[in-house]
Amino acid sequence: MAGPHSRRSAKAGLPPGTLVHLGKHVSEKTAITVVNYGDDDFRIKKVSSVEECLSLIDVSMVTWIDVGDISDAKTIETIGSHFDLHPLLLEDVMNADQRPKMDDYEKHLFLVLKVLFIDPGTGRIESDQISFVLGKKYLISFEERRCDLFTSVLDRLRIGKSRLRRSGPDYLLYSLIDVIVDNYFVVLEIIGDNVEDAEAKLVSGTKAETLGAIQRMKKDLIYLRKSVWPLREVLSSLERGESELISDTLRVYFRDIYDHSVHTIDTIETLREMLSGMLDIYLSSVSNRLNQVMKVLTIISTIFIPLTFIAGVYGMNFKNIPEIGWVYGYPSVILLMILVTLAMLYYFKKKKWF
Amino acid sequence: MAGPHSRRSAKAGLPPGTLVHLGKHVSEKTAITVVNYGDDDFRIKKVSSVEECLSLIDVSMVTWIDVGDISDAKTIETIGSHFDLHPLLLEDVMNADQRPKMDDYEKHLFLVLKVLFIDPGTGRIESDQISFVLGKKYLISFEERRCDLFTSVLDRLRIGKSRLRRSGPDYLLYSLIDVIVDNYFVVLEIIGDNVEDAEAKLVSGTKAETLGAIQRMKKDLIYLRKSVWPLREVLSSLERGESELISDTLRVYFRDIYDHSVHTIDTIETLREMLSGMLDIYLSSVSNRLNQVMKVLTIISTIFIPLTFIAGVYGMNFKNIPEIGWVYGYPSVILLMILVTLAMLYYFKKKKWF
Amino acid sequence: MAGPHSRRSAKAGLPPGTLVHLGKHVSEKTAITVVNYGDDDFRIKKVSSVEECLSLIDVSMVTWIDVGDISDAKTIETIGSHFDLHPLLLEDVMNADQRPKMDDYEKHLFLVLKVLFIDPGTGRIESDQISFVLGKKYLISFEERRCDLFTSVLDRLRIGKSRLRRSGPDYLLYSLIDVIVDNYFVVLEIIGDNVEDAEAKLVSGTKAETLGAIQRMKKDLIYLRKSVWPLREVLSSLERGESELISDTLRVYFRDIYDHSVHTIDTIETLREMLSGMLDIYLSSVSNRLNQVMKVLTIISTIFIPLTFIAGVYGMNFKNIPEIGWVYGYPSVILLMILVTLAMLYYFKKKKWF
Amino acid sequence: MAGPHSRRSAKAGLPPGTLVHLGKHVSEKTAITVVNYGDDDFRIKKVSSVEECLSLIDVSMVTWIDVGDISDAKTIETIGSHFDLHPLLLEDVMNADQRPKMDDYEKHLFLVLKVLFIDPGTGRIESDQISFVLGKKYLISFEERRCDLFTSVLDRLRIGKSRLRRSGPDYLLYSLIDVIVDNYFVVLEIIGDNVEDAEAKLVSGTKAETLGAIQRMKKDLIYLRKSVWPLREVLSSLERGESELISDTLRVYFRDIYDHSVHTIDTIETLREMLSGMLDIYLSSVSNRLNQVMKVLTIISTIFIPLTFIAGVYGMNFKNIPEIGWVYGYPSVILLMILVTLAMLYYFKKKKWF
Amino acid sequence: MAGPHSRRSAKAGLPPGTLVHLGKHVSEKTAITVVNYGDDDFRIKKVSSVEECLSLIDVSMVTWIDVGDISDAKTIETIGSHFDLHPLLLEDVMNADQRPKMDDYEKHLFLVLKVLFIDPGTGRIESDQISFVLGKKYLISFEERRCDLFTSVLDRLRIGKSRLRRSGPDYLLYSLIDVIVDNYFVVLEIIGDNVEDAEAKLVSGTKAETLGAIQRMKKDLIYLRKSVWPLREVLSSLERGESELISDTLRVYFRDIYDHSVHTIDTIETLREMLSGMLDIYLSSVSNRLNQVMKVLTIISTIFIPLTFIAGVYGMNFKNIPEIGWVYGYPSVILLMILVTLAMLYYFKKKKWF
Repeated sequence: MAGPHSRRSAKAGLPPGTLVHLGKHVSEKTAITVVNYGDDDFRIKKVSSVEECLSLIDVSMVTWIDVGDISDAKTIETIGSHFDLHPLLLEDVMNADQRPKMDDYEKHLFLVLKVLFIDPGTGRIESDQISFVLGKKYLISFEERRCDLFTSVLDRLRIGKSRLRRSGPDYLLYSLIDVIVDNYFVVLEIIGDNVEDAEAKLVSGTKAETLGAIQRMKKDLIYLRKSVWPLREVLSSLERGESELISDTLRVYFRDIYDHSVHTIDTIETLREMLSGMLDIYLSSVSNRLNQVMKVLTIISTIFIPLTFIAGVYGMNFKNIPEIGWVYGYPSVILLMILVTLAMLYYFKKKKWF
Repeated sequence: MAGPHSRRSAKAGLPPGTLVHLGKHVSEKTAITVVNYGDDDFRIKKVSSVEECLSLIDVSMVTWIDVGDISDAKTIETIGSHFDLHPLLLEDVMNADQRPKMDDYEKHLFLVLKVLFIDPGTGRIESDQISFVLGKKYLISFEERRCDLFTSVLDRLRIGKSRLRRSGPDYLLYSLIDVIVDNYFVVLEIIGDNVEDAEAKLVSGTKAETLGAIQRMKKDLIYLRKSVWPLREVLSSLERGESELISDTLRVYFRDIYDHSVHTIDTIETLREMLSGMLDIYLSSVSNRLNQVMKVLTIISTIFIPLTFIAGVYGMNFKNIPEIGWVYGYPSVILLMILVTLAMLYYFKKKKWF
Repeated sequence: MAGPHSRRSAKAGLPPGTLVHLGKHVSEKTAITVVNYGDDDFRIKKVSSVEECLSLIDVSMVTWIDVGDISDAKTIETIGSHFDLHPLLLEDVMNADQRPKMDDYEKHLFLVLKVLFIDPGTGRIESDQISFVLGKKYLISFEERRCDLFTSVLDRLRIGKSRLRRSGPDYLLYSLIDVIVDNYFVVLEIIGDNVEDAEAKLVSGTKAETLGAIQRMKKDLIYLRKSVWPLREVLSSLERGESELISDTLRVYFRDIYDHSVHTIDTIETLREMLSGMLDIYLSSVSNRLNQVMKVLTIISTIFIPLTFIAGVYGMNFKNIPEIGWVYGYPSVILLMILVTLAMLYYFKKKKWF
Repeated sequence: MAGPHSRRSAKAGLPPGTLVHLGKHVSEKTAITVVNYGDDDFRIKKVSSVEECLSLIDVSMVTWIDVGDISDAKTIETIGSHFDLHPLLLEDVMNADQRPKMDDYEKHLFLVLKVLFIDPGTGRIESDQISFVLGKKYLISFEERRCDLFTSVLDRLRIGKSRLRRSGPDYLLYSLIDVIVDNYFVVLEIIGDNVEDAEAKLVSGTKAETLGAIQRMKKDLIYLRKSVWPLREVLSSLERGESELISDTLRVYFRDIYDHSVHTIDTIETLREMLSGMLDIYLSSVSNRLNQVMKVLTIISTIFIPLTFIAGVYGMNFKNIPEIGWVYGYPSVILLMILVTLAMLYYFKKKKWF
Repeated sequence: MAGPHSRRSAKAGLPPGTLVHLGKHVSEKTAITVVNYGDDDFRIKKVSSVEECLSLIDVSMVTWIDVGDISDAKTIETIGSHFDLHPLLLEDVMNADQRPKMDDYEKHLFLVLKVLFIDPGTGRIESDQISFVLGKKYLISFEERRCDLFTSVLDRLRIGKSRLRRSGPDYLLYSLIDVIVDNYFVVLEIIGDNVEDAEAKLVSGTKAETLGAIQRMKKDLIYLRKSVWPLREVLSSLERGESELISDTLRVYFRDIYDHSVHTIDTIETLREMLSGMLDIYLSSVSNRLNQVMKVLTIISTIFIPLTFIAGVYGMNFKNIPEIGWVYGYPSVILLMILVTLAMLYYFKKKKWF
């Protein structure tokens, strides 16, 4: 997790539109994949220079440019000036701490999304930023870090005569967002499993580390919700067909992923309520255990303290304690102690203290 | 309960509209019931193949096709292509983890609902998905698992001259939803009884398992609310008469079940507030019991500790403790002990500690 | 209180519009009062058969039919068919667990309200349902159980030349609702008194039953709010003059009772916040008392435990404990004990523990 | 504070528009001040009879009638019939438990506001109701109890050539509301000071009465919020210029006091959050103190209980306990006790228990 | 922090538009900077008298007047009368406790914003008020206290051919707001660091002062949110292009800082939720520590109390206790004690009490 506050301060004081990279990952080499496709043709090429990339654009086909690294200001700027992108748009591309959003620049549409995954090392949620620029005949995707989510879409593109091949870049955009949102379910299911694990552990016995785990999962869910809530608004406006770059036949598709995003939010809220319930159970079971321990102490102490007092009385060194001289003095006192014990046990039993 | 996260991840990476069954139940044989009815006629037939089903459709009458299993992609696909249903609609039919919703595909209306029932084994709430496709002359219902809720509607259909027979498929749809929503009250009343049982148990004495029961009921209510909230929106838009497939005379009927759904939500919220109150009482009574036990310990300890000390003093082996040699030494000390006890009892009584 | 879940399940599976009585009260005889009034005339008659009632309707005057029992389906049905009321409306009349609401059936207006009162036996809030059907020249009121709230309105009707006599049934409806809402203040003031009683008791000392009383009042307020919140919406749409059956000059009157309903909600929320505050004080004072008891135990134990140890040391039977043989051994030890006690008392005093 | 429930029940059953005084203050004599002013003239007169008051109205000037007591129904009625005020408006004037509101009666505007002040005796917030009737050429103000807030406005009126003198009654209304809202800041600052006092006391040490003070201030703020929230809506609709009686040039002035009311609400919310935080600190510090006391007990008990046991062992009267006869038996045991004590102190130190 | 309630009361009773300075800072000398710029020219001059300032205004260029002190009513008034500013606007300029807001006075636009910074001494958030008056050819900025945030904008102005130089005062306004909002991130990151520090301290061990620090940060965030929430509304209406003084090409720029403000609010909410979680952990860990201490006490006491009792029994002075005379009496009792100890340790181990 990038933490709730990324280093925005690095930009304070700079003029607006200044391209400064804000992100976690810097790769040595800009990795750009250029895909051209149409009804009958499909070409894919990995290039390392942005000039080569631009030379590959074929206006008779749909072009998808996938930029796998956003740390190099020059690359972003060159692409920006070629496609006539606004400086603030380019700034947003390079700042990997954006909220998901959609900006309509008439000639093109700008979208910022978050790809979520579980870091295998820490088990925490990580997020990478992906931004899309959708034009009439092209789609540009900027990935904070190359991830392998899009390979399934590429595979479908490769197959001729698929709906994806016959459609414009808007359907490609939809397919990519669909893959990203589907991946949220994968992440959510892992968290859901963790929540249920923690719940099972709670039932079998209270461990001190459970509290930390609950808080950690709560923080993860806050983070997740921050990514999904604004996405829902983005998808809602796509569904309403506000942009002319998205053909009307696609609205039903965007409604579908809109439904998915609502489903995701629902699940997040349910998990949050489950965690709250678990916290209640945890705190209550901790106090119940203390309760149990306290009761045993009470009972043992309450039984022995009077007995010890009786023993103390006959340990006094007074010259004339008559009982001390009696033949059955000792057994009588032992009997008295047993009676006192039984009386107290009966009292506690009646009070249902154990 | 299906759990807050069903295995959506199985679909990640597949192209949109791919028919993959997501649900708990798989039956070996697709069970389809085809009902044709009109003013003067009523025909019902159970078929096992989808082709036979389609051959039975009679365009001069109203046709109700009830598909009692959604696990077979081929069946769903054949029906879909016959009625010209959108692939995403078919996908939603097969994924049994949808939120209740209504999609308007102009030529037909698509509704997803949840049937709720109490699992007799675990006492927990279970939900099955039912989706409806309403056309001009037909209604298709897809049940995740065949349930016996619809038999009462069938019985009413069988009787000639009923309003149901004289009306179109929209009134049939209304009747089926009415039966489903009425069933929510049955489920809610069982939960309500459980809540009152748990409350009665709370009053008569605090048991450790009550907390678990409260949390379980809370989770059930969260689950229930997730089914009913979106349903309310669905019914609200049906009431507003947004679709042309629903005749205007039916709007007052949908307003009626809309009222029922609001009533359900009200009851759910009331039960949730009752459970919160019970949690407060539970936690407070647990701490009160501890309080009570602690007070008894305090009083017994506080009385005996000074007495034991006095006994200890006269158990010391000093050569010249004058009191030890006194004739009335022992009775005096006993008297002293009684006085100390009485003084402390008086003090505690005055402080209202018992 | 009817409890949060009334037996709606009795109706599951029945066709819509089936008249089944859902309510707490069944009287043996339907009690109907028919009132006809106009500028110059006023006639009132109690009838026991619905046919007699209908024969008394005088179209040249305003007719008010007050049905004092809703358990007899035949009565409701006969009235319904005479005034051409929708089956669902009649169903709502007989089901006494409706939420307050207003349905506009163009030719007539249907309102459901709740009359609240305090049950003298249990001190809990009870509610009865009252529904109104307002037509051009008539008003029908259905009371779940005859209550004596309306007598003041009857008295005003009896007096000639009153505004009530000169106006149509809409002003009569307003007068009846005004009486019902005014009665809410009576109920709220009783609850308010109970809340202040409980608060006074809290201040003077904490009793175990206070918690139960607070929870009971909380539940009563939840119940009350459920009756008043939807009423507010009803009155708001009456104020906006949405129905043609209500003359425009009455809108200012409905605004007035709308203000009253908002005032009621305000008071309910204030009482709820007061109860929450009292719960905090209660729980805190319970823990404070425990705190106090614990401190006394601590101090007494902490003082006597070291003293008992000192006594124990000189109770040991070692042959050569030099102090034992000393002449001033015993007084020295007693002095030591007094010094230890004073040192501890000084320490506790300095720590402000008592 | 009038308490959350004033005696509305006194009015239950009375016909609407019945003038019954609901308020805390009854003065023996109606005090009416009549002010006439225009560009060149200013006349003020205190009258005791309502007839005299009406005779003083000068249609060529602006008239401000300030009624300093609302307990006399006859006065209110006479004024009402002269200015053609609606009976419900007069009813609202006499019922001093209204929520702040604005009713537009076309020919005149009716406003209800609350004047807040701190009762010097109890230190609690008190509120008086002030209602205004604004006409074309006149303003009537009804004060529940004469307060001296308006003297500053009178002083400004007295001065010739002021904007106030040149403007109509709408500007006068604005000036009076401005004075009332400004006074809220005075009240809020006193509460704010109290909150900070209580906070300072909390930091320096926890006193039992702090909890009560926090709860009292919380209740005051709830009460305050109830007065200010509806006022905000009133000012918002005045700012939007919905009434023709308010000239458009005044809208910027009402926007200004609208801003003030929002500022007030902000401050109230901040104070409420501060009080919640203080409650947390209070409860936590109470439990921390207990914690501290418990730890001292634990440590002292845990140290002395084993020592006392050792002493007890050598206090046994067995004939052949070899250690008892040893020459260094006693010093050895004392040494053992010291070692045990040191070991335990080291253990507790390592555990950071003190 | 200025505290939640600034001394507004000082103004109660004064006529509206009276210029009274409400603020923390008073400088001896009004510091005004006048900047004139255009495509080819840039002039900057610091003046100390307001008359000199006004003489420098050049209508052929854009003029930026930066007033670095708002305590002198005469200065404000002179500027106000020159630019024809409304008295209420000038009042708002001088009252440094405004909420951020935007008022549209047709001929000019008035904005109030807050500059935030961390006081180096106390580590708390401080805020200064900055108000802007935007005209056709001029921008006036009033700073509560001169701060050095605007130097970066001045530096950019100095450079010829920059976008800033070629644009009107609206772009200058945007640049200044951008600098102010960027600075919020700097402040938020410092708070974020403090939150994480406190969290790390919590994990490593619970210190009493942590609670105070959490509460302090909570208060800071409440304060921060009060500054940012209304700002968001201001920026939203600027983005919607409601004023004609802002050219349409700037709307995309204001959308950008609107996004930043939403980002800020998001971060504040996340930090607040983190602090709440930390409070839970803190309270729970405090009670866990007590729990731990209690368990050790329980175990030690429970083990030694029975042993001490056994020792007490054989410390009694009865003449005929047979065991006392036995040869192996003493070792048998020691053995008995060891067995009792082991039994209890086994029992506690089985119960998992340590």
